[in-house]
Amino acid sequence: MVAEAKKTRIVILGGGFAGLHAAIHLDDTLARDPDVEITLVNRDNFFLFTPMLHEVAASDLDLTNIVNPVRKLLKRINFFAGEVESIDLERNRVSVSHGFDHHHHELPYDHLVIGLGSITNFFNLPGLEERALTMKSLGDAIHLRNRLIAHLEEADTECCAAVRRPLLTFVVAGGGFAGVETIAGINDFVREAVPFYSNLREDMLRVVLVHPGNVILPELGEKLGRYTEKKLTERKVEIRVNTRVTGVTDNSVQLSTGETIESKALIWTAGTSPNPVLDSLPCAKERGRLKVDEMLQVSGWPGVWALGDCALVPDRKTGQYHPPTAQHALREGKTLATNLIASVRGGILKPFSFSTIGQLAAIGRRTGVANIFGINFSGFAAWWLWRTIYLSKLPRFEKKLRVALDWTLNLLFTKDLVQFQTFRAPTISHKNGMEPQVPLPDISLPDIDAGQVASLETLP
Amino acid sequence: MVAEAKKTRIVILGGGFAGLHAAIHLDDTLARDPDVEITLVNRDNFFLFTPMLHEVAASDLDLTNIVNPVRKLLKRINFFAGEVESIDLERNRVSVSHGFDHHHHELPYDHLVIGLGSITNFFNLPGLEERALTMKSLGDAIHLRNRLIAHLEEADTECCAAVRRPLLTFVVAGGGFAGVETIAGINDFVREAVPFYSNLREDMLRVVLVHPGNVILPELGEKLGRYTEKKLTERKVEIRVNTRVTGVTDNSVQLSTGETIESKALIWTAGTSPNPVLDSLPCAKERGRLKVDEMLQVSGWPGVWALGDCALVPDRKTGQYHPPTAQHALREGKTLATNLIASVRGGILKPFSFSTIGQLAAIGRRTGVANIFGINFSGFAAWWLWRTIYLSKLPRFEKKLRVALDWTLNLLFTKDLVQFQTFRAPTISHKNGMEPQVPLPDISLPDIDAGQVASLETLP
Repeated sequence: MVAEAKKTRIVILGGGFAGLHAAIHLDDTLARDPDVEITLVNRDNFFLFTPMLHEVAASDLDLTNIVNPVRKLLKRINFFAGEVESIDLERNRVSVSHGFDHHHHELPYDHLVIGLGSITNFFNLPGLEERALTMKSLGDAIHLRNRLIAHLEEADTECCAAVRRPLLTFVVAGGGFAGVETIAGINDFVREAVPFYSNLREDMLRVVLVHPGNVILPELGEKLGRYTEKKLTERKVEIRVNTRVTGVTDNSVQLSTGETIESKALIWTAGTSPNPVLDSLPCAKERGRLKVDEMLQVSGWPGVWALGDCALVPDRKTGQYHPPTAQHALREGKTLATNLIASVRGGILKPFSFSTIGQLAAIGRRTGVANIFGINFSGFAAWWLWRTIYLSKLPRFEKKLRVALDWTLNLLFTKDLVQFQTFRAPTISHKNGMEPQVPLPDISLPDIDAGQVASLETLP
Repeated sequence: MVAEAKKTRIVILGGGFAGLHAAIHLDDTLARDPDVEITLVNRDNFFLFTPMLHEVAASDLDLTNIVNPVRKLLKRINFFAGEVESIDLERNRVSVSHGFDHHHHELPYDHLVIGLGSITNFFNLPGLEERALTMKSLGDAIHLRNRLIAHLEEADTECCAAVRRPLLTFVVAGGGFAGVETIAGINDFVREAVPFYSNLREDMLRVVLVHPGNVILPELGEKLGRYTEKKLTERKVEIRVNTRVTGVTDNSVQLSTGETIESKALIWTAGTSPNPVLDSLPCAKERGRLKVDEMLQVSGWPGVWALGDCALVPDRKTGQYHPPTAQHALREGKTLATNLIASVRGGILKPFSFSTIGQLAAIGRRTGVANIFGINFSGFAAWWLWRTIYLSKLPRFEKKLRVALDWTLNLLFTKDLVQFQTFRAPTISHKNGMEPQVPLPDISLPDIDAGQVASLETLP
């Protein structure tokens, strides 16, 4: 017990690009030290590869293939599947909840790494919190996919056009990467699915992108933004620039231009906020993000580190802050691991330094847009880059292989239309019907037919 | 409108083995007639291949691969995704509900085909309705898989053995096909997963099968039943024969022997009842199942047909009834289609006649048991038969290929541990944090990082 008490305890909060990559770099280094104990806390027991999330929503990739179990990515670091409830910087403790009863645990730490990311913010716009769909988690993507199919199923059976129109109109708010990739995926999916619905025609579909700026994909520059607008418009996506969503009701989406779009599906990708757990922390923040120095240390709190979307990391070269992107987050993870090792073992901390290499977006139907080292790519070449680069970044060979196979099979088959209703089969509880657990005299005990041979005509 | 009114309307209720196969045989025949309109009603928009359901729960197969969208299986028959609420035989109408608001539609018919299957029955046993898991739907299998992983995750963080034991004990009630295949899958899965949980050891796991009869898998005969018991026992499954589950609480399962097993997971496969929609029908029934003649016509109600698990089909050869298995259901579907065509176009109805060819069960770790034409198979040969036969029966080449690929990749990789939490990402709605829809001056607009390049180190 004496030896136990002497251990240096490191707790990492959040298993996104930032937290996970910090953990991966520590797993093979500091975590080998017998007197160091490292714990990673994350809500899900998997790492979600968010750049491919829109491919799940659009039925291009199987949902299992863009997630990796954290326990298979880390060997020596403890994993704790739970929700971070609060952080007590004064007492060096984190309160986490988990399990069926959401009971609490306290995790004491000597070093704390905060990588809690950001969450979707609806900015008090009326109706959004209750009705808008989002695109942040695997559940979000499954939910969106199910909604698209549910709308097609319902519209197929409605004979009245007034009921059908809002079901067949899909609105995405926000023309950044998430919004553009999502609308491109939705557009491809519904147009490919509609021939299977005998009462629906493609001209009944409306897919609308609402963007507050002058041109979509502003991070990629006006030229690629205009190219994307042209491509999407050719594929019948309606684009409203200089327009905001101002509210949503059960059957319509209101725009800042005064226009009302009849729609039952608004997907909101137009705003985020840092994790609200950070709100109560007594350290320096700006717009909710934690201020850190170039070493990724939270100012004034020795042993507390922050990185990723929830941290404001100064960029010496520009005098501003590093943008909250995956490519920055995973490199911050590596720098943080290096600095943490130096802190524990003794050594010199190094400042985080990195410049954006490039940015890419997949915009549907084997086209993409990319700006890499200042050079613009568009069309098939950019889409090919997108696939190659992200596939190489997806952790674990198994998942790379499965995604590559999925993409290959997509060349042969149309998109799947299965609605993943997660509801369980109906049950009943009464004394009538079959006797419990006893085969009947005249008919054999019904079961789910698992294992009962369907036919043996194919026997060799 | 006059022409419309003259159409012969056929409504098929249920898209399981029975209803779907009736529809498939009608799709290419009667559905071609311009004066015939056929509609298939099913809750899910997919056909679930139930014989492979336990492979999803055990993480052997990807959940997308054992389901086929009904709309891709049928070309000419209308599909209606909805719940059957009631059947009015007097007025020739079916009431179905669907959509987000569960509104009702009335479907009039000239011919009605009832293939509504059976549902799990808990027989008023205390605690089961609230706590027991079942294995009938895709949602059930996903739910079971998530529960297994959730238990491992929670147990890994508990320091107290008293809390850990019920989390790591899994009880299956019912030693028929469903129960045996489920427990074999659970046993393989948890034992393969446990090395990834640093605080757990394999000897902490308990997997218990409770069966009311003298030997498990009674349909396959005592010899194969004993073989299966021996194999499962070797793999540390505890088997309680001549025992029933009598109740369940939050932390324990009570058995008829007086024994109480500390467990938080009971999977109930030990009883079914016909669909309760049939209860109110004024036609002849026995134990809730509809009595039909050999032509599959419901006695006394011309134009009403029934088949599959919800029908009691007389077997002329034995003087008893056909068992409710998948192999019977799909052949009843074919006979029903033939007889329906004869009824509509004129012709002679033919009686249903079929004898069970054989039965198979997969019992884990590449072993199986089978009785085919009275010959017993066991071990690897029976498992190979199981895979070959069921793969050949899985509809659509695409899914066959995907399952075959999954099985091939399973040779290379360990089982996946991802918990498919379908909860959506947390959101917030307030004015603080990032401005809505407007890039900030110093940091670019945060989004889900979709499309933002992770790294370009791999560029050619």
